[in-house]
Amino acid sequence: MVEFADIEAAAERLRSIAVKTPLLYSPPLDEIAGGRVYLKPECLQRTGSFKIRGAYNLLSQLDSTQAASGVVAWSSGNHAQGVAAAGSMLGIKTAIVMPQDAPSTKIENTRRLGGEIILYDRYTGDRELIARTLAAERNATIVPSYDHAHIIAGQGTVGLEIMRQADELGVIPDQVLVCCGGGGLIAGSVIAIKAASESTLVHPVEPVDFDDTARSLKSGSRERNSPDARSICDALQSESPGEMTFAINRQRLNNGLTVTDDEVRQAMRFAFRHLKLVVEPGGAVALAAVLTGKIDTKDKVTVAVLSGGNVDAKLFAEIQAESQG
Amino acid sequence: MVEFADIEAAAERLRSIAVKTPLLYSPPLDEIAGGRVYLKPECLQRTGSFKIRGAYNLLSQLDSTQAASGVVAWSSGNHAQGVAAAGSMLGIKTAIVMPQDAPSTKIENTRRLGGEIILYDRYTGDRELIARTLAAERNATIVPSYDHAHIIAGQGTVGLEIMRQADELGVIPDQVLVCCGGGGLIAGSVIAIKAASESTLVHPVEPVDFDDTARSLKSGSRERNSPDARSICDALQSESPGEMTFAINRQRLNNGLTVTDDEVRQAMRFAFRHLKLVVEPGGAVALAAVLTGKIDTKDKVTVAVLSGGNVDAKLFAEIQAESQG
Repeated sequence: MVEFADIEAAAERLRSIAVKTPLLYSPPLDEIAGGRVYLKPECLQRTGSFKIRGAYNLLSQLDSTQAASGVVAWSSGNHAQGVAAAGSMLGIKTAIVMPQDAPSTKIENTRRLGGEIILYDRYTGDRELIARTLAAERNATIVPSYDHAHIIAGQGTVGLEIMRQADELGVIPDQVLVCCGGGGLIAGSVIAIKAASESTLVHPVEPVDFDDTARSLKSGSRERNSPDARSICDALQSESPGEMTFAINRQRLNNGLTVTDDEVRQAMRFAFRHLKLVVEPGGAVALAAVLTGKIDTKDKVTVAVLSGGNVDAKLFAEIQAESQG
Repeated sequence: MVEFADIEAAAERLRSIAVKTPLLYSPPLDEIAGGRVYLKPECLQRTGSFKIRGAYNLLSQLDSTQAASGVVAWSSGNHAQGVAAAGSMLGIKTAIVMPQDAPSTKIENTRRLGGEIILYDRYTGDRELIARTLAAERNATIVPSYDHAHIIAGQGTVGLEIMRQADELGVIPDQVLVCCGGGGLIAGSVIAIKAASESTLVHPVEPVDFDDTARSLKSGSRERNSPDARSICDALQSESPGEMTFAINRQRLNNGLTVTDDEVRQAMRFAFRHLKLVVEPGGAVALAAVLTGKIDTKDKVTVAVLSGGNVDAKLFAEIQAESQG
C-alpha cells in the first residue's frame, strides 16, 4: 500500500519545489494549552495548502504518454491549486472540476496557476461523473484528491517533516492533530509519524457534521455523512473516508475530535490576533480542538497542523469582525 | 557603544523568552523578485513584533532597586506591548504613554499584558514630558523605544538570527531590508549582520514622508520630518533618527528606500493572499520595497524583515477589500 520508504521518496521529489514549512509556537497559545503546542503552518506552503505535495508527487511519476494527455481532477479548491501548480511546473495540462460556490480565491488562483476550470453545482451535480467523462474523452489521467498511494505518500511528507523538525528541537510529540476530509493527509502523516515514534498519538479533527472518520474509527467500517450536512470548512466536506486512506487510518489513528463552525471561527480569530497567520476554516480545525480543550494538552507536546490559508478576504473580514472569543 | 558581543549576550538572555522566528520564503514572491527573498516574520514574535527583544534585554538588566520602582515608556504600541510583556515576565511594574489614536488592538494588548496605560493626543500632547514627569514622581526608569544600548542590542538579535539561519541554509544574503523608525532595529541588526558578512548591504526602508534616516544618511546629519507628515505606518512615525542609532547607522547603512501608503497596502494584500501572514503597515515596508522594485533583487539573495503584525481587524479588512494590486 503506502510504505514509509514511499514517503521518503516523495520528500526527495518535493525537495526543490515544496516549501519546508517551519514548526512554529506561540507563547499565548502555550499558555492556553498549559503545554507546548507546535504548529505546522501549511498555509505558508506553495499554493497556500499542503495539497501541492501529493499532486506533485503523483504528476511527477506519470510516464511521457500519460503526461502528454494531461490530467483531470475534482476539488473544492486546494487540491485544484496543487494539481494546477504541479502541472504548470511539469508542463502537464490540467483540467479541474470545481464547485461553483468554492471560495473565489481558490477558483481564481487555480486559473492563474494554469488550470482549466469546469464549474458544477456542489449539491446537484456529480463532479466525479463530469471528471471521468472528460478524462475518457481526452484519455487523461484522473488525479484523485486522496485515495491514491502517490497522493497519500506526498501528503505524508507533512508528518515526515514534523518528526524531523521535532527531532532537531530535541522533542518527541505526545500527540499530533491533523484535519481530516478524505483522510489523505493524515494517512500519509501517521505512517511517517509512527515510523519515527510509535508512542505518538495521532488524532483526526473534523467538522461536527462531517465526522465520518471519527464514526468510522469507532464502528470499524466506512460511515457516510448526511447529504444535508453543511460546514464552513469547504476543504473538509468529504462524503466518507477513502477506501485506501481508511485502510491505513483504522489501524493507526486514535479517536477523532470534532469542532463546530463557531469554534473554527474562534480559532481563525485567534490565529489572526495572536499568531498573525491567515488560516482558512478547514485549516483551523486542529487549532480549534486545542483552543477549546477537546484534547488534554496540559504538560504535553502537541503538534497541530494548519493545513491551508486559502480564504476569501470578505469571509475573513466577516469572521474577524465578530465579537471576541 | 554597542558591540557584537552585546548582541550575543542579549540573544542569550532572550533564549527562553523570545520566539526564534523562522526565515520563510515564498515561490510567488521569488518569481516577482527574480531571485530568492527570505522573510524574517517578526509578526510571529511574542507580542506580535520584535519589540519584546529590546524591552526584555533592558528590563532584565535593571538592578533590584530599579526593578522595584518600575519603568515608564512611551510608544505608539509595539514597544508598549514589548515593555508590558517583559515587565510582566520579570515582575516589574510598567506604565506606558500611548497616543489616543494608536490601533486599539495595540492598546488592548498592552493592557492585557499588564501595562498601565496613559493616553495622550499624538498631535498636541508631549508624550516625552508626560512620561518623564511620571517617571520622576515614581522614581521609575525610562525605557526608550530605540536610543539606548540595551534596546539596540536586543533588537540586534533579529540580525544575528538572520545571519545564523542564512548560514544554516548555506547562503550569504546580498542585502537585508529593514524598516526604520527611530532606527534601533536596524542599528542593532546591522552590527550583527556586518560581523557575519562585511559585504552584505543593509538598507533602511521608510514611509515617504518619514524618510528622516534616508535623508540623514545623505546629508550626514540628523534630519527631521515635517510635523505635518502622516503615514498609515503608525509604528514608523519618528521625528528624526536617534542620536545613538544614527551614530551607528551612518557608518554602516546603505542608501535608504521609501514607500508610499498605497505600496504598503499592496504589500499587506500580497502578504494576506500569497504569504498568509498578517503584517501591519509599518511591518510591510520592506516587503513593499521588494514588490515595487525599489531595489534590484534579480538573481540576488534578499532578506526582508516583517517587523510586526499588530493591525486592527477593521483596517486590515478595509485594505484587503481594496482592488487587486
